[in-house]
Amino acid sequence: MSHPSSPSNPVALLQDLLRCRSVTPADDGALGVVARSLEMMGFEVTRLAFGPEGGQTPNLYARLGQGGPCLCFAGHTDVVPPGEGWSCDPFAGDIRDGHIYGRGTADMKGGVAAALAAVARRLEAGPLKGSLAFLITGDEEGPARYGTRSVLEWMKEQGEAPDFCLLGEPTNPAEMGEVIKIGRRGSMNVVITVKGTQGHVAYPHLADNPIHRLVPILHDLTSRTLDHGSDWFAPSSLQITSVDVGNPATNVIPATAQARVNIRFNDLHTSGSLCNWIEDVVACHAPEADLDVAVSGESFLTEPGAEVEKLSQAVQAVTGRTPKLDTGGGTSDARFITHCCPVAEFGLVGATMHKRDEHVSLASVEQLTQVYLEFMQRFGV
Amino acid sequence: MSHPSSPSNPVALLQDLLRCRSVTPADDGALGVVARSLEMMGFEVTRLAFGPEGGQTPNLYARLGQGGPCLCFAGHTDVVPPGEGWSCDPFAGDIRDGHIYGRGTADMKGGVAAALAAVARRLEAGPLKGSLAFLITGDEEGPARYGTRSVLEWMKEQGEAPDFCLLGEPTNPAEMGEVIKIGRRGSMNVVITVKGTQGHVAYPHLADNPIHRLVPILHDLTSRTLDHGSDWFAPSSLQITSVDVGNPATNVIPATAQARVNIRFNDLHTSGSLCNWIEDVVACHAPEADLDVAVSGESFLTEPGAEVEKLSQAVQAVTGRTPKLDTGGGTSDARFITHCCPVAEFGLVGATMHKRDEHVSLASVEQLTQVYLEFMQRFGV
Repeated sequence: MSHPSSPSNPVALLQDLLRCRSVTPADDGALGVVARSLEMMGFEVTRLAFGPEGGQTPNLYARLGQGGPCLCFAGHTDVVPPGEGWSCDPFAGDIRDGHIYGRGTADMKGGVAAALAAVARRLEAGPLKGSLAFLITGDEEGPARYGTRSVLEWMKEQGEAPDFCLLGEPTNPAEMGEVIKIGRRGSMNVVITVKGTQGHVAYPHLADNPIHRLVPILHDLTSRTLDHGSDWFAPSSLQITSVDVGNPATNVIPATAQARVNIRFNDLHTSGSLCNWIEDVVACHAPEADLDVAVSGESFLTEPGAEVEKLSQAVQAVTGRTPKLDTGGGTSDARFITHCCPVAEFGLVGATMHKRDEHVSLASVEQLTQVYLEFMQRFGV
Repeated sequence: MSHPSSPSNPVALLQDLLRCRSVTPADDGALGVVARSLEMMGFEVTRLAFGPEGGQTPNLYARLGQGGPCLCFAGHTDVVPPGEGWSCDPFAGDIRDGHIYGRGTADMKGGVAAALAAVARRLEAGPLKGSLAFLITGDEEGPARYGTRSVLEWMKEQGEAPDFCLLGEPTNPAEMGEVIKIGRRGSMNVVITVKGTQGHVAYPHLADNPIHRLVPILHDLTSRTLDHGSDWFAPSSLQITSVDVGNPATNVIPATAQARVNIRFNDLHTSGSLCNWIEDVVACHAPEADLDVAVSGESFLTEPGAEVEKLSQAVQAVTGRTPKLDTGGGTSDARFITHCCPVAEFGLVGATMHKRDEHVSLASVEQLTQVYLEFMQRFGV
C-alpha cells in the first residue's frame, strides 16, 4: 500500500481494513494494515504465527514504552463470511448517508481502527506515560485455538504483563454508551449419544428404544432451574440445540439417538460442576450413553473497580450515557485475557454484526476513538 | 404357460408363483397362475383392477358353488423387494435340502399355493358342500389402498358375503402349528411438529425453543402405561420412532422440532381415543403444534368360537401341536376382512420373511395344505 492512511483517522483506517477479505482463516493483509500504523507510531511490532505448519494463525503483538502502567488494546481483524443479500460490496468500505458498510465494521475492524486512531492522537498530544500494547489476532471467529490464547502464552514467556486490557468488541445493542462488558458467561457444548437395540415397533420387548432413554435425560436437564442469576450475571441457561435420529421407517425402533446441548453459565457454576451433573442425569437413564463435552470457556468477571470506573467515566464523558456493566451475550477472547490481567470490553453498536449490510455510523467510530482517548488519559498513559 | 402345474401339488404351484417377479406393485403374471388353477377347478374367476388409471392394483375374486356355508381363502401374491445377499436367485424357486427358497415362500405365496392345492384335493375327494371363494390381492406389501379393501367393497356390492375367511399369512414363529392369529392390534402413526422462534443460544429470552416444548410432550407420552393387556391382547405399546431437528449450529436455537410416534394398540383403545389423548398432551405444552395422524388400522378380534375351534383342531390333527390363539405382531389385510366376516390367520413359518434367503420346508407346505383340507372338512364345505 503506497499511501497508508493517517493513523489518527479511524474511518480511513477502517476502510483499509474492510478492503482486506480477511474471512477466517484468511488474513489478506489486514494485520499488515495494523502493523504499518503501529510502526508509524513507533511501536515495536512482533508478528506471531502459531499452529500447525501450512495452516498457521497470524497474530500481532506490539508495544510502545516500558514504564507502568501498561494498557493493552485487544481485538481481531478476522471476520465471519459475508453471506448473501448485501446491497453493496461487503469488502469495499462504502460510505452512504453517514454510515460505513462492510463485513467487520462492527465486529470488530471498527474497534481496531478506533484504538489505533486514539493512540495516534494520544501520541500527538504529548509524551506517553507508562506504556501501550496491542494484541490483535487473525482468528477469533474461527476455532480461536492459535489466536489470542497462543499470543497470551507467548507474552507470559516474554514477561509481557499488561495492567489492564481493553477489548473493542461491539458491546452496545443500539446506541453508543449503553454497555461495558466486565465478564462473560461460560459456554459448553455437550453431545449425548444413546445407543439402543434396533427392532420392529410391533415387538418392542425385543428392542431397546434409545429415544425412550434420551427423552427422560432431556426432560431432567430442562426441568432444573440452574440458578436465578448472581450479582453481575444473568441466570444460567441450558438449551437443547438439536435432537437427531434420522429414522424414516415408521415401523422400526432405531438403534441410536443423539441430542446436542449448549449451556451458558454464570459464576455460580463451572464446566466441571455442570459436567458432573449431566453425567449423573445420564447415568440414571442411559448408563451406556456417550458424552462428548467441549468447553468454550468458563465464566469470568472483572470485579468493578478503579479501572472499570475510569472506563465508565470516559464513556459517559463522550456519549452522555452511563453505561450498564454487563456480562451477557456470547463469548469473546476476553475469556482468555482474564487469566492474564483485568479485562473489560467496549466497542461499537453490534446491531448488524454477523448480518448482511453490516454497518456502523461514522459518528460512532469517532465517538469510540474519543472514548479510548479519554480512557487512556484517565488510566494514566 | 403351456404346462400349468397340477393344482393339487402345492410345491409345483409355489414354484410357478415364485418365478413371477411380483415385487409390489408389479404382478408379473402371479395372479394369472392363481386364476388358471382356479379355472381348472371350475371356479368363476373375476380379475379386478382398482385405483387410478395407469397405476391400478390387480386383484382376483373367485367363487365355486352358491350354497352355504361359504369359506373364503384370502391372501396376496405380491412380495417385498429381495434386497441383497441371497445365496440363490430369489425368483427361481430353487429346492435345496428339503427346503424351497425364494422371495415370498413364507409371505405368502406358500399360503396361496397350499390353499389352491387343498381345494383341488377337496374337489377330488367328492362333491362340494356349501361354497368356496378366493380373495387374492396384488398389493398387500405396498400402500394396500386398492387391494383387499377395494375387493371387499366390490364384494359387498355384489352380495358376496363369506361366512368365514382364512388368511394364509405366515403365523408360526418357528414350527408349524404354533400360532393361529385371531386378531391384530391396531396401528397408528403420529407426526408431531413443534414450531418455535429461532434465535441465538446466548439470548434464549428472545427465542422460543421448540425442543423444550417437544421434550415434555414426549416425556408425558412415554410415561403413561397405556394398559396391561386384555383377554386376547398383549399390552398396547407406544414407540417414538424418530426425533429430528437437524440443527448443526451449536449456538443457534432452532425454529422447528419434529417427532414421529407409532402406537400398536389393543381392544381397550381406539385410534380416536388415543388421538384425543395425544391432542390433550400436546395442547398442554405446545398448543400451536401440528399433528399429522395416520391410522393403519383399528385393533380387531375374532372372538374364539366354533370356527376358530375347528381350525385349531385341524392344526392339531396335522401338526400334533395345540396352536396358541394370538393377536401379536404387525398388521395384515385381516384388519379389512374383519369388517366383512370373521377371519383367522394360519400359514407357514415366518422366520425368514422379508429377509434374504427366505425359505420354508417342503414338509411345511404339505402340512399347511393338509391343515386347510382338514379345516374345510370340519367347516362343512
